[in-house]
Amino acid sequence: MPLLGLLPRRAWASLLSQLLRPPCASCTGAVRCQSQGTRDLSPQHMVVREKILDLVISCFKRHGAKGMDTPAFELKETLTEKYGEDSGLMYDLKDQGGELLSLRYDLTVPFARYLAMNKVKKMKRYHVGKVWRRESPTIVQGRYREFCQCDFDIAGQFDPMIPDAECLKIMCEILSGLQLGDFLIKVNDRRIVDGMFAVCGVPESKFRAICSSIDKLDKMAWKDVRHEMVVKKGLAPEVADRIGDYVQCHGGVSLVEQMFQDPRLSQNKQALEGLGDLKLLFEYLTLFGIADKISFDLSLARGLDYYTGVIYEAMLLQTPTQAGEEPLNVGSVAAGGRYDGLVGMFDPKGHKVPCVGLSIGVERIFYIVEQRMKTKGEKVRTTETQVFVATPQKNFLQERLKLIAELWDSGIKAEMLYKNNPKLLTQLHYCESTGIPLVVIIGEQELKEGVIKIRSVASREEVAIKRENFVAEIQKRLSES
Amino acid sequence: MPLLGLLPRRAWASLLSQLLRPPCASCTGAVRCQSQGTRDLSPQHMVVREKILDLVISCFKRHGAKGMDTPAFELKETLTEKYGEDSGLMYDLKDQGGELLSLRYDLTVPFARYLAMNKVKKMKRYHVGKVWRRESPTIVQGRYREFCQCDFDIAGQFDPMIPDAECLKIMCEILSGLQLGDFLIKVNDRRIVDGMFAVCGVPESKFRAICSSIDKLDKMAWKDVRHEMVVKKGLAPEVADRIGDYVQCHGGVSLVEQMFQDPRLSQNKQALEGLGDLKLLFEYLTLFGIADKISFDLSLARGLDYYTGVIYEAMLLQTPTQAGEEPLNVGSVAAGGRYDGLVGMFDPKGHKVPCVGLSIGVERIFYIVEQRMKTKGEKVRTTETQVFVATPQKNFLQERLKLIAELWDSGIKAEMLYKNNPKLLTQLHYCESTGIPLVVIIGEQELKEGVIKIRSVASREEVAIKRENFVAEIQKRLSES
Repeated sequence: MPLLGLLPRRAWASLLSQLLRPPCASCTGAVRCQSQGTRDLSPQHMVVREKILDLVISCFKRHGAKGMDTPAFELKETLTEKYGEDSGLMYDLKDQGGELLSLRYDLTVPFARYLAMNKVKKMKRYHVGKVWRRESPTIVQGRYREFCQCDFDIAGQFDPMIPDAECLKIMCEILSGLQLGDFLIKVNDRRIVDGMFAVCGVPESKFRAICSSIDKLDKMAWKDVRHEMVVKKGLAPEVADRIGDYVQCHGGVSLVEQMFQDPRLSQNKQALEGLGDLKLLFEYLTLFGIADKISFDLSLARGLDYYTGVIYEAMLLQTPTQAGEEPLNVGSVAAGGRYDGLVGMFDPKGHKVPCVGLSIGVERIFYIVEQRMKTKGEKVRTTETQVFVATPQKNFLQERLKLIAELWDSGIKAEMLYKNNPKLLTQLHYCESTGIPLVVIIGEQELKEGVIKIRSVASREEVAIKRENFVAEIQKRLSES
Repeated sequence: MPLLGLLPRRAWASLLSQLLRPPCASCTGAVRCQSQGTRDLSPQHMVVREKILDLVISCFKRHGAKGMDTPAFELKETLTEKYGEDSGLMYDLKDQGGELLSLRYDLTVPFARYLAMNKVKKMKRYHVGKVWRRESPTIVQGRYREFCQCDFDIAGQFDPMIPDAECLKIMCEILSGLQLGDFLIKVNDRRIVDGMFAVCGVPESKFRAICSSIDKLDKMAWKDVRHEMVVKKGLAPEVADRIGDYVQCHGGVSLVEQMFQDPRLSQNKQALEGLGDLKLLFEYLTLFGIADKISFDLSLARGLDYYTGVIYEAMLLQTPTQAGEEPLNVGSVAAGGRYDGLVGMFDPKGHKVPCVGLSIGVERIFYIVEQRMKTKGEKVRTTETQVFVATPQKNFLQERLKLIAELWDSGIKAEMLYKNNPKLLTQLHYCESTGIPLVVIIGEQELKEGVIKIRSVASREEVAIKRENFVAEIQKRLSES
């Protein structure tokens, strides 16, 4: 898939500004268009998507995952109190008599519900599907309200950090495979986040709310996040400042060692557990050969309530940076973490099934790849047609229909114009504009001689082949090309 | 895909009775399950689906179709007054401030909206996606409220009946390809239906309502349909009886000729147009070699309002019937028709784009195939894993992690147990139960000798391969198998 090279810095900037355009730009005004924040996917979009999803899914399958699907909507009660502050963004269905339903907000909660409902204790699955969030177009511009998620999760009680390390390996394989340029995966642990809050003096009742604020650090400056924590969420300024010292820290496994020695953090049991697991994780990541892609980052918090252990988020980097220049952050393209308590919330006896997983932000990837193709002027074929059935004369519809049926019945992708008497030039133009490589031509002369002419669109060479051999000849040519 | 043979008659009966079971049978009661009438798709379901969808999509691509997607929900106004009597089954979203939205009810109306909105005058596209209908579980049992549709449509102004014939060809290719047993495609024309209503004396205001009743003839006996028309819809009994005479007629192209001579029908201009087109259609179907699969059937009406010309519906037949025995009708598995007015409804100036298309009823096909596999005891692998990384000794996690990363990085599908010290027997059992064909084994001896053992799960043969050659050896074996 020769999709991607490196984008120059200016192209990144233009890309970012386009990512931030208001949604529904495709609305022409000709007709009342589709719902705000959603969009149609044209054949051009679909070709790019198919290639990217193929790569993602084949990676998931390489790691032994099974496919699965859940309904687009769930009982509202299944989804409530799982997402923290973001819950208000859920789409509810109208009460038309019956149950209260909501469109799914992610693929993780339905997976946990599935595990509990079917008493599944162990499962490695992937799920590609749409999710829906009522993002306000003015607040979070450029995000669509309907988007695709690609999730991979490992459920089950295993020895520590082995599945977690595999999740990070998968993220690396996918991001490398897509050739999106250099990337970095930030790693932290919810227990370190909570431990940090505790030793900084955050009241436990505010842990999740402050966590949501910290999560905004990749989009907002520290002073704005601090303002939100102090003014909106009532945190004491000196507590905020103590947090501020920690969230500046990022580094490799040596930072893990350093935090073990941190006079405050080392007093917190939870934080120590998290640090211990991170140390083990780094050991496995080194064996996988990906430790250089991973950064322990104390500013990573992840917004969702359900995480309980390791959390991570992959960022694309502006690759060719000058010395001393900060890498340009183009945002998260994959993220995930450990959620050991979620399945238990659906089990009547509270039986837990520990889980760890990841979600690939394919919408952003789709967009980046599309932009890069545009920049490079790469054309995509939106059909796969191999052969076109043409005639230079009038009254050859019947012969064309017979020929094309033979091609279809032999598994060959074929098209013709739906006209009784099309002009030859129109037919050949169609092949050139849609990228069809071969034409078979039937006319008076061919009919008389019992042959079919095969024309290569690129070279314009034509050869006459006996009627009974033309399918075989085409199959030969297609297998060679 | 060796999915299907022939089902014995009794198996059909059991299949039918299971199709009619109440939805949501997977609910174990262990936890408040998902919404009524919906269900999760397990890995086993997904494998069957993927195979069937691959076959359907590759047929659509063989005919030159482009992929496309539209949002799950549309503005409510886009969907209203498009579906006739069924409109009440639409899922509306809750008014959370903003627009009034509904989940899509089919893929056809969104396609027409797309064409009008983007001023597309010509397009051949396929679309595979979910649609949602609030079918009452007690009235229409066995139907799910969320289901998948596979649509193929040709939009554009072309010479008559050429795209229509291609749609029927596609239905034949897909149904033959899936090896679902014998099938028959009923064909009619909305203009013949309406002409028939006119000459029988149905008031024009009742055309669509009576059409909906006639559409039920494949599920209800004539006397019940007649009762509905007379009692519920106020049709004069003698008018109903006149319709009753017509709807018994079915046959090949000779019936078209016969209807041309029908003293009443031949007086109706619309009906004559429809008959003329059907005659031409049969000519093309003969050239495509599928005329024997098609039956002109005056009882075919299709419930949806938007059809304007040719309509069709494919039925699976109970194949090995005794002489004189009626074929057992297992219901429609594909259907479609011509809708020349729908796009114009979305264009401010009413510009029309003629369309013809088809929809494959994949849910029923999924179910039939699953049942047949169950009957035959066919097992499906739900993963594609090729190699398992095992160890007979303790403390070999690090070596296993290094080996499996090499396999993944070489594109090989590989798994291992997420345990520090798994038992060899457990590891080999895992391979047998999940169908993994190859095992690579690393232990003390192998490490000392610089080799890796490769074991065939089926033959239990083991060979030692130099560590640096083991990936190549595995790739060789996989390419041979």
